[in-house]
Amino acid sequence: MTFLKRSKNCGELRSQNIGETVILNGWVHSRRDLGGLIFIDLRDRYGITQLVIRPELTPDVAEKAKPIRSEFVLWAKGTVHKRESINSKMPTGEIEISVEDCDIINPSELPPFEILDELDASEELRLKYRYLDLRRPALQNNFIIRNRVAQITHSFFYENNFIEIETPYLMKSTPEGARDFLVPSRIHKGKFYALPQSPQIYKQLLMVSGFDRYVQIVKCFRDEDLRSDRQPEFTQIDAEMSFVEQDDIIAVFEKFFKRLWKEVLGIEIQIPFPRLTYKDAMENYGSDKPDTRFEMKLHNLNQIFANTEFQVFANTIASNGIIAGFNAKGFGSYSRKQLDELTEFAKKYGAKGLSYIKFTDNSISSPILKFLKQEDIENLKQIFAVEDGDLLLIISDNWRTTYTALGALRLEIAKRGGIIESVKGQYNFLWVIDFPLFEWDENASRWVAMHHPFTSPNVSDLDLLDTNPGEARANAYDIVLNGVEIGGGSIRIHNEQVQKKMFDLLGLTEKQANDKFGFLLQALKYGAPPHGGIALGLDRLVMLLTGTDNIRDVIAFPKTTSGLSLMDNSPSEVDPDQLRELGLKI
Amino acid sequence: MTFLKRSKNCGELRSQNIGETVILNGWVHSRRDLGGLIFIDLRDRYGITQLVIRPELTPDVAEKAKPIRSEFVLWAKGTVHKRESINSKMPTGEIEISVEDCDIINPSELPPFEILDELDASEELRLKYRYLDLRRPALQNNFIIRNRVAQITHSFFYENNFIEIETPYLMKSTPEGARDFLVPSRIHKGKFYALPQSPQIYKQLLMVSGFDRYVQIVKCFRDEDLRSDRQPEFTQIDAEMSFVEQDDIIAVFEKFFKRLWKEVLGIEIQIPFPRLTYKDAMENYGSDKPDTRFEMKLHNLNQIFANTEFQVFANTIASNGIIAGFNAKGFGSYSRKQLDELTEFAKKYGAKGLSYIKFTDNSISSPILKFLKQEDIENLKQIFAVEDGDLLLIISDNWRTTYTALGALRLEIAKRGGIIESVKGQYNFLWVIDFPLFEWDENASRWVAMHHPFTSPNVSDLDLLDTNPGEARANAYDIVLNGVEIGGGSIRIHNEQVQKKMFDLLGLTEKQANDKFGFLLQALKYGAPPHGGIALGLDRLVMLLTGTDNIRDVIAFPKTTSGLSLMDNSPSEVDPDQLRELGLKI
Repeated sequence: MTFLKRSKNCGELRSQNIGETVILNGWVHSRRDLGGLIFIDLRDRYGITQLVIRPELTPDVAEKAKPIRSEFVLWAKGTVHKRESINSKMPTGEIEISVEDCDIINPSELPPFEILDELDASEELRLKYRYLDLRRPALQNNFIIRNRVAQITHSFFYENNFIEIETPYLMKSTPEGARDFLVPSRIHKGKFYALPQSPQIYKQLLMVSGFDRYVQIVKCFRDEDLRSDRQPEFTQIDAEMSFVEQDDIIAVFEKFFKRLWKEVLGIEIQIPFPRLTYKDAMENYGSDKPDTRFEMKLHNLNQIFANTEFQVFANTIASNGIIAGFNAKGFGSYSRKQLDELTEFAKKYGAKGLSYIKFTDNSISSPILKFLKQEDIENLKQIFAVEDGDLLLIISDNWRTTYTALGALRLEIAKRGGIIESVKGQYNFLWVIDFPLFEWDENASRWVAMHHPFTSPNVSDLDLLDTNPGEARANAYDIVLNGVEIGGGSIRIHNEQVQKKMFDLLGLTEKQANDKFGFLLQALKYGAPPHGGIALGLDRLVMLLTGTDNIRDVIAFPKTTSGLSLMDNSPSEVDPDQLRELGLKI
Repeated sequence: MTFLKRSKNCGELRSQNIGETVILNGWVHSRRDLGGLIFIDLRDRYGITQLVIRPELTPDVAEKAKPIRSEFVLWAKGTVHKRESINSKMPTGEIEISVEDCDIINPSELPPFEILDELDASEELRLKYRYLDLRRPALQNNFIIRNRVAQITHSFFYENNFIEIETPYLMKSTPEGARDFLVPSRIHKGKFYALPQSPQIYKQLLMVSGFDRYVQIVKCFRDEDLRSDRQPEFTQIDAEMSFVEQDDIIAVFEKFFKRLWKEVLGIEIQIPFPRLTYKDAMENYGSDKPDTRFEMKLHNLNQIFANTEFQVFANTIASNGIIAGFNAKGFGSYSRKQLDELTEFAKKYGAKGLSYIKFTDNSISSPILKFLKQEDIENLKQIFAVEDGDLLLIISDNWRTTYTALGALRLEIAKRGGIIESVKGQYNFLWVIDFPLFEWDENASRWVAMHHPFTSPNVSDLDLLDTNPGEARANAYDIVLNGVEIGGGSIRIHNEQVQKKMFDLLGLTEKQANDKFGFLLQALKYGAPPHGGIALGLDRLVMLLTGTDNIRDVIAFPKTTSGLSLMDNSPSEVDPDQLRELGLKI
């Protein structure tokens, strides 16, 4: 149980240390016994250093080294020597330690998988033995980067006069949108706290309190059916500012991203970022989080087909729908089967069908060829800069379906064509602005807030709340990077009457609004400043910075998609006494 | 809804700005209408600036200013002028703004209490309107200090090679000691997550993973019956280090405290701090968290009363108990009634009685005077350096009761005598070490861990686990400041067999140990490094740094002692649908 404490770590010795006597502590990364020589690669967070034991010179040490296997914890004392064969791939590759004494601090059973970056163990097994999986240098590096992001965040906002204030985790349940995780109260039986889906209301109240600039790196919780890129608990960089407009918040966060990219990746990104309205994003890219690293833009074709004889298109135009398409460059050779696949793909996004026009071997083929006038074809060729070998994909449906399905197809084509792969390492930031304030929920037959109920309408659209809420735009903005929404925010409502009207439009009675949000409405009566903010998804941000597409690679102890922790088997059954104390029955 | 954005804040204008045209935004702190002149003190987080409106010169502005009342939000544009009567108490006291234009951004109803540091509103009312209470500059200052503490923490540990890693909030319920808050799982009905009482096991697993040095500012949760200085959620500065001994952890944290006190208070504290064994702390101060800012030490009197005829003392000695006391300096004039109060006070701590000896007017009075030989009195006088006017307080009972009750009396006397008040501003840090590993739980008839079940025994006491567990000391340490325990830690068990023995001694069957902590036992099989750590209570630390004795003064949105949030009325009833989805009944 005692050990010689390290004088150096396993990553820091260089040729200038030659001749020094050092003590190292660490894990056996590998062990090679060449008879006359025993080599041990000793690993810690800082690197790997080669130990050499010479049985001829130090038979006692060789004897102690006999039982040593992978992942044993050792201490080793010795002298730094120049290596005979220098390993230029390792920072410590110029030296090795000639071991004078060593011993086992803690042995290890044979691990269920090797601690290697390229490992073929199932993710299930790796999650069960997460503490071993986390020994892999590639995975450790993700957390070192995550830590740097956190550090830069703390410093940047501190330097910019933001105050980190902790908001409560045990709060009021006000489900609006997603489901809350509930926490039963023992003292007040039958009552519940909720875990925060976001500190939204609390940070607004901090603005009412006059804290002026708030930031927090904070865990949030949503009890949703999980998708592969979601976790029940996730981390936000959450900020709020007073006496500001949209431009002020955007400016602060552009500087923040610039600093992050510079300090973490050494990359200079250009600010300001482009801004795209929601409408333009949808009509050009078929997405409110467009990946602009490549073009392949969508085009509206209503004009071209204004007098078409193709009944499907004519009907679409008659019903105020949209005909649009894009050039799947170089996909002209797609077979009937492949095109059928694309049609099925488009249908998943609500499209009723997919029209295509192939330009191959200087001829044109298309199921709708007979409806196309020569003029139409020339127009299409010009709009889409068609070359031989191209494929036009066209959808006609209502505005949302046409653009959403085309946007999904655009990404699918980019993936199949290797475009996504070819733009790796490129970082295209952009702001999407002027979102609609509301979406119409067909099932509930009512308006729902596209962002959340505290988002301010654009000042110029205030009157639309009374006349045509569906047309009102929100003073909201999303930050998008390479087709991923990494955050979003808005200017909030600071006027009690507007907030009440908002709740009313969302179908809350006055009583419901007061029960849920009475404390916010009350606060707005006592001099709330104009304010707004933003929240970034830290997990996604770190995924983009580390280049992983698995969210579990950036969370130390993640859950599976069904919310299980395979390591500790939570959630688990609890003692009946615990439930009795809470006054709960299953 | 529109406003002129500030060019300056309300705390930064000085005489060198005279002549500049500025725009300010803020809250009306006060308004005085002198007929010919209207003065408005405008407040924001950064300070207060005086605005002057001259109805003669700007009748329109005066008209707009008419409805302005306290806590209205304004914008004001004007020129910086030298004040006629300089207010040297305010940083902005040399100047005022001659208002050229201004308007109301948001009005305020009359607040339920005035926004003043010296306010007489009940805490209940202030908690209900917390967003208004938080406008008080003194309270805001607490959060500015808390933010600085957080910043220094992030920087200090980053510079010292610690990695901030987020541990899960939805974890396994392993109640050991305090009660868990539970979170029902919707996907796995009848199963529960628990909120962390501390990230203890996870940070140990991070050491097993080789992260080497971990730190986190993290919320923890305990569902306990609350005392006035407790909150159901509280914040820890939580750290863990590998390949270390007690001295290494103590050294890092002494440097941390030194930096905190220097940067937050501008005070140089001396390191290293004194270390006191648990036994010495108890026998000298009657506390495992002694306030050493004043002496009034306890003394063992068994020797003196070895042959006493006073039956109570003789019985104590015969039953291996302890007779001890201290000199309540200057309390010799205490009346019979006051001494009875002290006796009642001592009884609350388990003492069966309290003996006293008064030295006043050069005479001695005591109910036990007849049992005291002249020699005893001389001895007592010498030990306690008795002067005329002093009062000796003596208790005889078992070791724990005697010292605990005397320790409580010592603090009570210090409070009554104004000593606590007189040592304000003094900071006495010390480490208490060598705690017992176990305490005997009379009710459960079993050992319980004094720290937690993962604490390592002192290496030299390992054998005692088999022979005499009650005598085994823990490799644990508490950091105490001015009589407040602000943190504690230990070297952990990194050996699977020792950990199993520990669980066994704590009365867990092998099955129970595996059900609860199987993943930890498993992890210890694969090369766990020696490791240890510490957790500091951030809330208490900030209380000491800000000089408040109310924990709610350092938490933005605190709960009452019954776990209520008076502002948002949580915990609250939830929708029956929410419970149905969770498969729960009340």
